[in-house]
Amino acid sequence: MRISELSERSGIAVATIKYYLREGLLPAGERTSPNQASYGEDHLRRLRLIRALIEVGGIPVATVSDVLAAVDSPEMPLFHVLGVAQDSLSTPVPAAHDAEWDRAYAAVCAEMDRRGWDMKPSPQAIDTLTGVIVRLAQLGYRDWATTTLPTYFDSTRAVAETDVAAALSAGGRDDIIDAVVVLTVLGDTALAAIRRIAQAQVSLERLRSREDM
Amino acid sequence: MRISELSERSGIAVATIKYYLREGLLPAGERTSPNQASYGEDHLRRLRLIRALIEVGGIPVATVSDVLAAVDSPEMPLFHVLGVAQDSLSTPVPAAHDAEWDRAYAAVCAEMDRRGWDMKPSPQAIDTLTGVIVRLAQLGYRDWATTTLPTYFDSTRAVAETDVAAALSAGGRDDIIDAVVVLTVLGDTALAAIRRIAQAQVSLERLRSREDM
Repeated sequence: MRISELSERSGIAVATIKYYLREGLLPAGERTSPNQASYGEDHLRRLRLIRALIEVGGIPVATVSDVLAAVDSPEMPLFHVLGVAQDSLSTPVPAAHDAEWDRAYAAVCAEMDRRGWDMKPSPQAIDTLTGVIVRLAQLGYRDWATTTLPTYFDSTRAVAETDVAAALSAGGRDDIIDAVVVLTVLGDTALAAIRRIAQAQVSLERLRSREDM
Repeated sequence: MRISELSERSGIAVATIKYYLREGLLPAGERTSPNQASYGEDHLRRLRLIRALIEVGGIPVATVSDVLAAVDSPEMPLFHVLGVAQDSLSTPVPAAHDAEWDRAYAAVCAEMDRRGWDMKPSPQAIDTLTGVIVRLAQLGYRDWATTTLPTYFDSTRAVAETDVAAALSAGGRDDIIDAVVVLTVLGDTALAAIRRIAQAQVSLERLRSREDM
């Protein structure tokens, strides 16, 4: 199809598609004349993936570019690709590496050890979590790591099991990688939304008996 | 304390603090002379909250301003304040309201009904979740709502119970509101990070037997 049809079917402006082509997010089409190229279903699918990452995940274009570069490296082992994708898709949380950090990091490692989680990749996610615990302590929520963190770990294992099962059932290598990226990013947003709905429900149940507030 | 000390203790540049004052995110200090004002511990705490929302939550300054306006409305009932805060802190996911949307919305309502969740506030979160399901369907993940969504709902109830218990134990009305905002935003990032760690662990366990990939 021509770029105009690609634009129509994806709902994305031609100028935006050209921007993604220039940035290397979208592979070039097959040239059919000096001024024209032809695009296929793969381009349409890739465009939807890019939009989902940017609009739903709030992922910056530069990061999308890193993730797609990993996705497009056929020689990289699958587990490594997944690591790159998951690392790029973690929010870095700036925090000084002081005594507070060491305490928070120890709390994270303790939760992992308790569950026999022996993997040591995903360092960005561990750093992110540690940074959140440091920030919470600075804001006065010092016991969060003991009261809340264990429940978060307990609840999230089942979520990850489902995520990985869904990704691995996607088919071959390329489909698995696509699934990991899509399900990771859109899953974050879904999980946050369900957490809001559940919080509203739990608050309603609790506050029914506290009408004074 | 003077603005210079406020800057030193918070680690935030004086120019940035002045910007937050102009935008109304931070209440004015007590004027001590025509060119000077004095700030208290409340200002320091508010500054840390603003930075956490922006840096950890990736919340835009305009949204932070909306949330803090709700937080600062003493006449608003607590449940309503929490609703405003949770709504503002949900990511909107643009999606057309077509037949695909209706199917996704019905799937969300079915999960809520099945659990007897009778609250109908938090419309933004329900919209966000519906939008994610629509996007996943467009990307080819059409069975996500039947295979994965129920697990997400099951896992998230315990998370929300902990969140609300932590918030309600924070003390009086102002402390509860502060806690809801902080724990909602930083909790999202924590949950996403733990999900990455758990995904890496589960992937490692599964892929140990699939070395060929």
